[in-house]
Amino acid sequence: MTTPPEMRLLGLAALPEVTPNMDLADLARHAVRDAGETFHDGDVLVVTHKIVAKAEGRLVDLHTVEPSAFAHEWAAAWGKDPRHVEVVLRESARVVRMDRGVLITQTRHGFVCANSGVDASNVPGEEVVCLLPLDPDATALAIHRSLKEATGAHVAVIIADSFGRPWRNGIVNVAIGVAGIAPLIDYRGQADDFGRTMQVSVLAVADELASAAELVMGKVSRCPMALIRGYSFDNRQQGSARELLMDPTTDMFR
Amino acid sequence: MTTPPEMRLLGLAALPEVTPNMDLADLARHAVRDAGETFHDGDVLVVTHKIVAKAEGRLVDLHTVEPSAFAHEWAAAWGKDPRHVEVVLRESARVVRMDRGVLITQTRHGFVCANSGVDASNVPGEEVVCLLPLDPDATALAIHRSLKEATGAHVAVIIADSFGRPWRNGIVNVAIGVAGIAPLIDYRGQADDFGRTMQVSVLAVADELASAAELVMGKVSRCPMALIRGYSFDNRQQGSARELLMDPTTDMFR
Repeated sequence: MTTPPEMRLLGLAALPEVTPNMDLADLARHAVRDAGETFHDGDVLVVTHKIVAKAEGRLVDLHTVEPSAFAHEWAAAWGKDPRHVEVVLRESARVVRMDRGVLITQTRHGFVCANSGVDASNVPGEEVVCLLPLDPDATALAIHRSLKEATGAHVAVIIADSFGRPWRNGIVNVAIGVAGIAPLIDYRGQADDFGRTMQVSVLAVADELASAAELVMGKVSRCPMALIRGYSFDNRQQGSARELLMDPTTDMFR
Repeated sequence: MTTPPEMRLLGLAALPEVTPNMDLADLARHAVRDAGETFHDGDVLVVTHKIVAKAEGRLVDLHTVEPSAFAHEWAAAWGKDPRHVEVVLRESARVVRMDRGVLITQTRHGFVCANSGVDASNVPGEEVVCLLPLDPDATALAIHRSLKEATGAHVAVIIADSFGRPWRNGIVNVAIGVAGIAPLIDYRGQADDFGRTMQVSVLAVADELASAAELVMGKVSRCPMALIRGYSFDNRQQGSARELLMDPTTDMFR
């Protein structure tokens, strides 16, 4: 009997409402302490994009937004708020699909998602929307370094958001910022259980970690972070969420 | 200090090689016992598609396959094995994309994935490939019922495979068969933390559970099942993996 791989996930709850310039690493350390834990080497901290955006002051009051004629027209056709449409268009680098009231865009970071990730839930104020963080990789790295300094532990940090995808219903949490861990594991060239070389097995583990964390964070439970313990990874391999973005020249669904 | 949500994942290792007609519920019970555990109400068992396919005898010896002229031509153009291409085409209901050596198809179940899910890794024999299970929902339900009968516990069962997706690199584990749990959670109409109605939040939790399980199963660690404990779900809501398939009329990426 060998010890099977085991992983533990802890939703980090009871945080105060995040306001601009709040120190998220500090917040995480307090949340972990409140959960009766401390950070260990090899832990993974998953942070929802929304508190990152809030700490960065990436909230937009729709009263301050003047929609373009294009935003007005499309919003009217599909019963949308033209100011919200305007913000989505401003946050996009490219419109991927725009049909039946659904706006799928590519953001300046390169993410393809609905509404450029602009979102009105869990945001204070009646007519306020939340943008994606400006540079989630940089924020993940800052939290990673700050936790290293404060605790001595190598903690991988993943900033996550829930995105839809073609072909399958429902949204799933994915990684939009990564630090202290490689977002992809390349099994190509490794032998399988029968000694044969594996063919196409590049696993998007950062996305899987983000999805796993969602299961303890939930949407309405005010758990904007999760601690994952026991996931085995090589902490000398570090990467960026940009590695998760498909090269447009090889993407057959661009 | 409230108790934060906590979830535990256990890779179930040390199984014998699965052969046709093997009882997977029985195998799962033994694996859980070998891990020093028993099944509890509310556990989720994730099973990799490959052992389901093996138990169903869904292995094809490529020596027995006669490729069509079409398979020959495409395989030659892209340096593929024409017999493998033939099997992929036979397993598909529709070719979604066929370019640059990549064959993305829709299977008869309705899944859109590379190569109809036909796969040559972790399969015994030099020239043998593994097909997707015939009816993963039915298999999940059979395992779910069998575990209920043997242990009295309500155990959700998810059959999982790793699929690629547009826009993002790497494959992630998703649910292709589901029993004893609703694959989607619909938050629409619920209030967020600020009392505002949530807008577009249908979470594909079965896919997130499958992804989470992959992190303890791995690709080469001979852990074809995982036990997830502590995920909170309503066991009166039950569903099918078909709910995860987007209606073609609303899929903008068909």
